Amino acid sequence: KKIAVLPGDGIGPEVMDGALKVLKAVGDWFNHEFEVEKGYIGGAAVDQFGSPLPAETIELCKKSDAILLGAVGGPQWENLPKEQRPEKGLLGIRKEFELFANLRPVKAFDSLISASPLKKEIVEDVDMIIVRELTGGLYFGQPSGRQGAEDEVAVDTLVYEKSEIERIVHKAFRLAQKRKKRLTSVDKANVLETSRMWREIVNEAAKEYPEVEVEHMLVDVAAMKLMYQPGQFDVMVTENMFGDILSDEASMITGSLGMLPSASLREDAFGLYEPVHGSAPDIAGKGKANPLAMILSVAMMLRHSFGMQEEAEMIEMAVQEVLNAGFRTGDLWSGGRGTAVGTEAMSDLVVERLE
Amino acid sequence: KKIAVLPGDGIGPEVMDGALKVLKAVGDWFNHEFEVEKGYIGGAAVDQFGSPLPAETIELCKKSDAILLGAVGGPQWENLPKEQRPEKGLLGIRKEFELFANLRPVKAFDSLISASPLKKEIVEDVDMIIVRELTGGLYFGQPSGRQGAEDEVAVDTLVYEKSEIERIVHKAFRLAQKRKKRLTSVDKANVLETSRMWREIVNEAAKEYPEVEVEHMLVDVAAMKLMYQPGQFDVMVTENMFGDILSDEASMITGSLGMLPSASLREDAFGLYEPVHGSAPDIAGKGKANPLAMILSVAMMLRHSFGMQEEAEMIEMAVQEVLNAGFRTGDLWSGGRGTAVGTEAMSDLVVERLE
Ligand SMILES: CC(C)[C@H](C(=O)O)[C@@H](O)C(=O)O
Ligand SMILES: CC(C)[C@H](C(=O)O)[C@@H](O)C(=O)O
Repeated sequence: KKIAVLPGDGIGPEVMDGALKVLKAVGDWFNHEFEVEKGYIGGAAVDQFGSPLPAETIELCKKSDAILLGAVGGPQWENLPKEQRPEKGLLGIRKEFELFANLRPVKAFDSLISASPLKKEIVEDVDMIIVRELTGGLYFGQPSGRQGAEDEVAVDTLVYEKSEIERIVHKAFRLAQKRKKRLTSVDKANVLETSRMWREIVNEAAKEYPEVEVEHMLVDVAAMKLMYQPGQFDVMVTENMFGDILSDEASMITGSLGMLPSASLREDAFGLYEPVHGSAPDIAGKGKANPLAMILSVAMMLRHSFGMQEEAEMIEMAVQEVLNAGFRTGDLWSGGRGTAVGTEAMSDLVVERLE
Repeated sequence: KKIAVLPGDGIGPEVMDGALKVLKAVGDWFNHEFEVEKGYIGGAAVDQFGSPLPAETIELCKKSDAILLGAVGGPQWENLPKEQRPEKGLLGIRKEFELFANLRPVKAFDSLISASPLKKEIVEDVDMIIVRELTGGLYFGQPSGRQGAEDEVAVDTLVYEKSEIERIVHKAFRLAQKRKKRLTSVDKANVLETSRMWREIVNEAAKEYPEVEVEHMLVDVAAMKLMYQPGQFDVMVTENMFGDILSDEASMITGSLGMLPSASLREDAFGLYEPVHGSAPDIAGKGKANPLAMILSVAMMLRHSFGMQEEAEMIEMAVQEVLNAGFRTGDLWSGGRGTAVGTEAMSDLVVERLE
């Protein structure tokens, strides 16, 4: 298995180092050969090649079976022209490889529940996954620009083709089948035409999955429920912009952003895996970052791209054990009990458990 | 002063009755003559006139100085054609009267803090107001419809003119001036052209309000911060769709949706005032609804449309006292301490305090 490794910016390289150690340990144990090759993306790629997504990186990804990505962005690249901003690398790679299905699991870790801004009884039973459409909608619709004699009008376009909605909706149904068989489809059908089409397609697809219970929810209502009843969700599916907002809101539920992995998939096994957190320039290079989201992203890769269920679970269990043993990076540390550790020590603890 | 009163559907009429009693009590005390005239909107208007916003209602509002609205919607109107759905009445009246500035204050009531899904220390110091643009963006942009040979493409349009953004941004700055002088402008400038224009306009306007501290925040980040650090906000300003989502999320912070009023304003003193909660068909007609959001909407009307600051504060204090005395409608009731009351009793308690 060949893996393109794109550490990116900020804490990206640090957490990636930890994740690669974990990958190696799992490979050794199960006798898998993982071939990793590093490439540039984001600000690091702008510095090296003048582009946040250089042709070299695209080539590397094309000959790989999966991509591991750290994080992109930082203050030094914020004032570059639009096309050179680090996030263009991220949007570009999603579109280039048609990674239309962004999966973001949100699950409360027992030993971390006290870190949540929400009350214990509300967080306790949260175990959901958000499926966000990632290559359509307002992010890529045309026209997107200025109009009028004096550029006094700005326009963006929210556009979806039926087929784009169908593939993400079916992905979500199949996922729900393997979980608690509850699907919440989020839209704004009382206002948007794209949402009305979305709803029709969900209803049509639902016929093929009679065992899955489907619920339609308006996006404003979903934003409320994520705060006061997040435990009611199993799989939530929604379009790109709504998914951006709701999945970030949901990432706060557990209070441990540094723990959340994500996968961006297409129809075949190929996928991109990255932590939900960003590049955290303020702590970059200090050895303080929490590597667990990146490590759990490796587990998602093993599961979704390589079909290695057992290997994935082994990593997840090792992470759980390290947390149960009381080890905490700064983001999880609230003083008092437990043992404070840095990025490298945390990664090594997971590796130890695997060995 | 002439007020158009549109009770609407579900619990709308019940909470409106309470609010009108309170209005009368304040009028008597201060010797103001408020002339109220009722009209139809939403499902009630569909039943009566075949349209959710009949010409009669528009006429009534035109000859009034302000509008009080209860709530619209209910299951019996959900399958009507798009143009007859109750929410079209709401969207229509906003557009008809160019009520472009939707103000939604979110403030924790000391005696209700335990109702919040968030931990006490997070809710405690929340006192913010969301200023949502209400007559532009995705809600009204054209084209909005189906395209392609087989209607296989759906499109909505996010469009803003400079002047539309300027007026809402200045409104928000002026509000911030009167409060804690902190303005958070929310956009998605790393993806949307409309957001980039929005950000430029905020930066330009900021020069006229040097005493107001301005911060730009991406919408996904704002959705996170509302959950883990809501106390950091003073005034938040954003476009229509983002405002819909974020203000509903924010309405959960205090755990008392039944307490939140809102105002929809234009440049002059005219405005529409309504509770944030909906028509709650499940408890309609049972005398259980919480009238306080509607009552507090009356206070907002006195303040914003009639310049009656003292009168508004008197209502707000009366509400506070009734809560401090332990009275609770079903939505606030968690058993144990306090006294459970219904809609009418709650309204009468507020009236008593005023007399
Ligand atoms: C960086 C930005 C363009 C990106 C997005 O909005 O998709 C990010 O917020 C994310 O969710 O991955
Ligand atoms: C009913 C609906 C059209 C409306 C909106 O989206 O504006 C409502 O959610 C609101 O926030 O007032």
